[in-house]
Amino acid sequence: AQNKEQLEKKNAILVDGVILNGPIIDAKAGQQFIQEAFPIIMEEAIRKGTDVNEKVCEWQPPAQLKKILDLELRDVGENHQRLLQRCQDVIRYSVKTSHPRFYNQLYAGMDPYSLVARFVTEAVNPSVYTYEVSPVFVLMEEAVLKKMIEHVGWKEGDGIFSPGGSVSNMYAVNVARYKFCPDIKEKGLSGMPRLVMFTSEECHYSVKKAAAFLGIGTQNVYVVKADDRGKMIPEELEKQIEQAKKEGALPFLVSATAGTTVLGAFDPLDKVAGICERHGLWFHVDAAWGGSALMSRKHRHILQGIHRADSVAWNPHKMLMAGIQCCAFLVKGNTGLLKECHSACASYLFQQDKFYDVEYDIGDKSIQCSRRADAFKFWLMWKAIGTRGLEERVNRAFALARYLADEIKKREEFRLILEPEYASICFWYIPPSLRNMEEGPEFWQKLNKVAPIVKERMMKKGSMMVGYQPHRGKVNFFLQYVLASRLLMLCIDNVLEDFTTEYILL
Amino acid sequence: AQNKEQLEKKNAILVDGVILNGPIIDAKAGQQFIQEAFPIIMEEAIRKGTDVNEKVCEWQPPAQLKKILDLELRDVGENHQRLLQRCQDVIRYSVKTSHPRFYNQLYAGMDPYSLVARFVTEAVNPSVYTYEVSPVFVLMEEAVLKKMIEHVGWKEGDGIFSPGGSVSNMYAVNVARYKFCPDIKEKGLSGMPRLVMFTSEECHYSVKKAAAFLGIGTQNVYVVKADDRGKMIPEELEKQIEQAKKEGALPFLVSATAGTTVLGAFDPLDKVAGICERHGLWFHVDAAWGGSALMSRKHRHILQGIHRADSVAWNPHKMLMAGIQCCAFLVKGNTGLLKECHSACASYLFQQDKFYDVEYDIGDKSIQCSRRADAFKFWLMWKAIGTRGLEERVNRAFALARYLADEIKKREEFRLILEPEYASICFWYIPPSLRNMEEGPEFWQKLNKVAPIVKERMMKKGSMMVGYQPHRGKVNFFLQYVLASRLLMLCIDNVLEDFTTEYILL
Repeated sequence: AQNKEQLEKKNAILVDGVILNGPIIDAKAGQQFIQEAFPIIMEEAIRKGTDVNEKVCEWQPPAQLKKILDLELRDVGENHQRLLQRCQDVIRYSVKTSHPRFYNQLYAGMDPYSLVARFVTEAVNPSVYTYEVSPVFVLMEEAVLKKMIEHVGWKEGDGIFSPGGSVSNMYAVNVARYKFCPDIKEKGLSGMPRLVMFTSEECHYSVKKAAAFLGIGTQNVYVVKADDRGKMIPEELEKQIEQAKKEGALPFLVSATAGTTVLGAFDPLDKVAGICERHGLWFHVDAAWGGSALMSRKHRHILQGIHRADSVAWNPHKMLMAGIQCCAFLVKGNTGLLKECHSACASYLFQQDKFYDVEYDIGDKSIQCSRRADAFKFWLMWKAIGTRGLEERVNRAFALARYLADEIKKREEFRLILEPEYASICFWYIPPSLRNMEEGPEFWQKLNKVAPIVKERMMKKGSMMVGYQPHRGKVNFFLQYVLASRLLMLCIDNVLEDFTTEYILL
Repeated sequence: AQNKEQLEKKNAILVDGVILNGPIIDAKAGQQFIQEAFPIIMEEAIRKGTDVNEKVCEWQPPAQLKKILDLELRDVGENHQRLLQRCQDVIRYSVKTSHPRFYNQLYAGMDPYSLVARFVTEAVNPSVYTYEVSPVFVLMEEAVLKKMIEHVGWKEGDGIFSPGGSVSNMYAVNVARYKFCPDIKEKGLSGMPRLVMFTSEECHYSVKKAAAFLGIGTQNVYVVKADDRGKMIPEELEKQIEQAKKEGALPFLVSATAGTTVLGAFDPLDKVAGICERHGLWFHVDAAWGGSALMSRKHRHILQGIHRADSVAWNPHKMLMAGIQCCAFLVKGNTGLLKECHSACASYLFQQDKFYDVEYDIGDKSIQCSRRADAFKFWLMWKAIGTRGLEERVNRAFALARYLADEIKKREEFRLILEPEYASICFWYIPPSLRNMEEGPEFWQKLNKVAPIVKERMMKKGSMMVGYQPHRGKVNFFLQYVLASRLLMLCIDNVLEDFTTEYILL
């Protein structure tokens, strides 16, 4: 051994004070670490994380959690045992978003196929910009997009996976603007008349973020009134368009919503399409939440008219459970618009003298450079359960939502705010102390405080996580997003029970 | 069993034709599937994918690969065995980006700690917008950003992890613009005088993409000449600023590059900082590639002056091997600018009546809504190897780059294009048929064809992947990005040998 060491020292290549012999990472030890971590992930995150008998969260206030996690990064590293303990802690104190009692936002559930695809992706570490670096994932993205485009109802289309529905909405604004006036790409907006886009008051906040980010300005998002159910009122849209024209501004885009964030409402797409056609406006549908209803032959009619859209944002990571993030931005037709609009033709990536068809180097359609292989998890899940399996998830969510709404209506301690069109259930919980009170200012003031208190108690117990918010003059109400995975029927009673339990103290 | 079935039928809850009893996902079968997939990932992607004796890629042209992968998505799902085979195929035909002979782009290498963190993240499926949903990852992001800010040399700072360096550069443009004129967020750019930003001709293409996307326009990116080494010439920057002012335009931002994409050059940050200060311009440094040199006490001087920057983009997924994507956008000072600039105050996420300090709901700093926990993989890696371990990676890459450059200079079949400042090695391979040829038009025309041909042959053999490109009047040359993981010293000779082997046929 000593001889070997001496020999190595003799042959050592020393450059700038660094010995270059041998690898810098001990591959065997590294693989051992991964082997040891896997059972922890399996038990703590995957098994317990989806077990209804476990807590959905293990609440700690920030100051306390900082201490527990010992976040500071130091000069010297730690041993494997310590690191495995850290992984365990990370999982323990993380919210179990795949838990059947996580109703906090518009995603949930653990699909094992998509999860495996995500593990594969991390291990392969691809970047989906060129065919040479990501041959498999480039083709898969194409296959998945093709199928999504079919479900939208277009004969031809193009698209790209993006890091979130918000970014997809930004793509829509940029493509619409490019179509409206290609010169803006080079010349910018300064000196241009005011560009105006339209969306309803119930739209996702990312539409305004897009307007701010893309230099259009939030004031140039004309907000169209919605009806009581949260749907854009077409006549109001017409009025706003006329108004903008009167002001000398240039209308270029309408963003309708299919599945609004709070009420789960669907804008009347067919009517909006007609208006867009008449005025020559780009018709975008933000179907991040509602797009998955397209998978259901029974329910897809709530998106009636979506085939007339020019672009669609649709996030399979929500209702279909593909895992965060899985977000497609889709454009009608095979016009090359997406690439034209975003391309920069970087010569270090997109050389034109490659030995294969460079049409497969799709990265120049994107605003990103390195880009994750988000289509693959959806692809593997789709292969695993088939179109019919995806449809079943959607149908189940619709039915569960219906059932939950009906159960809520049956009980005096709850009040349903509106009949669900999709899978967002909005309701008040009325504690006994308020049940016989006159519905005057005091009642509403007190009711407004119920949801935050109930939520706090539930989180501190780890029994449930559910959203709440005030909305359009209504005081804080609960907002329960229903996905197929969430409401195991056996626990619907318990879920409602939880609200009831919490009230006692109110 | 039959009795049980009958009982279940009797108790079945049927809504809209859907039986709601029981879960929709068979958790046990799903966990079994994950268990079975793990050894495949371990062996095929992790072990073989980093083994120098395996191929770096298994080339198939698109049409052929489509057939092999059977990409079509069908109505009916597939069994586990078939799906596991699919995972195996996906890995087999994917490029092994962690292989020691993958030099194609600016990332590579497999860090086992970061990989485990990524597996944990996928299993936990967080979205980092609020503390209530992502308590652990919100705090980790804060801890990692704090440490990165320290390394930049700022006393105080803010930041956010973004889906790519390109998006980080967009953040920079938007924050700079907001600082310059906050009204633009609401009013947009129309009617404004022309805003102008500056960057060098060697900048990453995303700077222009950002200008296009944000409505500034690519023509309003004034391109500053670089010297022979690829560094921005400060005097030329001054000239361009004066020119823009003379034209009545409004200069607002300079984007310098620390580690250019092709030559790996570092702009003279100190001098650029001085110019920005004199003219009151936002000083952004795109250090996506070069930022990691800040980890090295020995080499950080090549970023001399970066502490004077107003913002920095830095991707630990490149040199430090954190895995795609891990990209921080950093802003100097604790001014709240990042949030002010991007916030939309969505009431369904960022309720102000929560029971904890809502300062920890960091999502409104972002242009995204759901957002991945990219900071965690960097955090766990940092915990594992310490600041000194990260420093070692950087020092090793510098030394390897030096060694490779020297080896290239020793050999008549290669010509080094310039002495590396960092870890990008640019060189020609001169085949024997050209070695004694006069360096006239014919020579250059022929040399231009060498790199694409050699690359094609290497990829078809699966022996190596390396970038090439023409650049600033130089015909196609090889571009080898050196990371600590890549050049096992034992194979440097073999690596160079590979070029030599391929030439024989030329």
